[in-house]
Amino acid sequence: MDVKSRLTTLCYIEKDGKYLMLHRVSKKEDINQGKWIGVGGHFEEGESPEECLFREVREETGLTLTGFRFRGIVTFESKESGTEYMCLYTADGFEGALTACNEGELCWIDKKAVPQLNLWEGDRIFLELLNEQEPFFSLKLCYDRDGKLRKAALNGKELEL
Amino acid sequence: MDVKSRLTTLCYIEKDGKYLMLHRVSKKEDINQGKWIGVGGHFEEGESPEECLFREVREETGLTLTGFRFRGIVTFESKESGTEYMCLYTADGFEGALTACNEGELCWIDKKAVPQLNLWEGDRIFLELLNEQEPFFSLKLCYDRDGKLRKAALNGKELEL
Repeated sequence: MDVKSRLTTLCYIEKDGKYLMLHRVSKKEDINQGKWIGVGGHFEEGESPEECLFREVREETGLTLTGFRFRGIVTFESKESGTEYMCLYTADGFEGALTACNEGELCWIDKKAVPQLNLWEGDRIFLELLNEQEPFFSLKLCYDRDGKLRKAALNGKELEL
Repeated sequence: MDVKSRLTTLCYIEKDGKYLMLHRVSKKEDINQGKWIGVGGHFEEGESPEECLFREVREETGLTLTGFRFRGIVTFESKESGTEYMCLYTADGFEGALTACNEGELCWIDKKAVPQLNLWEGDRIFLELLNEQEPFFSLKLCYDRDGKLRKAALNGKELEL
């Protein structure tokens, strides 16, 4: 048996108490349509997590990362689209000037205001773990077809929703 | 583009300064033939890293893990067999009795003696990182066809070989 899965990165770039958030309003048929997320995307063949991270951040923001932390792995289980493993980063060092992103609008949002945005339910869980400076974690998120979070487990232990 | 990749876990179970090592002598046409490695294996559909870890450790050793740490991710780049992402763990808590493994012989080996075993070149790098209590790391290893390590990068920075 040779199960193969999709891998992605997601990065929250930090500056002055703010996160660089991407408001997904540009792509047609975007599963993230209208949602606010970090920047990132799919691994290309042979890439390490950092290689994907650097490339995606450069493509979506024009910035080059100089300081980053690998914070966790999120397993998204989905009956329809298969399983996705997302490498989650924060970054507090970068060079270059912010450019426009063709996947949505980039905005610096105060970290305290982020929970008021239109977020995926499970994103609230890992954003909280990032805020709490939780050591490297593995979070599993199971969503229903309608986008409702059905189950979540942190480091192998189920969380109460 | 929808690149999909293989994911695996590898675990070094610790007890009294020893690692539980698997001497791969049982499987035919085993890429690890003759090598000493930890226990682990391929993800099944929908599994989180921990779910794969618990299952593989149970299948290969009969043990149930009660204490473990997620130590790093290793990206194996290979032109022939595609890229593999390996979730690397150590474990210092377990229950149950050791059973025979159909993939090789299980032996408790003093950590100091492990470098003298027949190991993959890149395994020496991450075993050293585990010993040094390196915080969560991402290691990329590129092997030639003949099994020689061609390139290694730690957290995105190339290492001297």
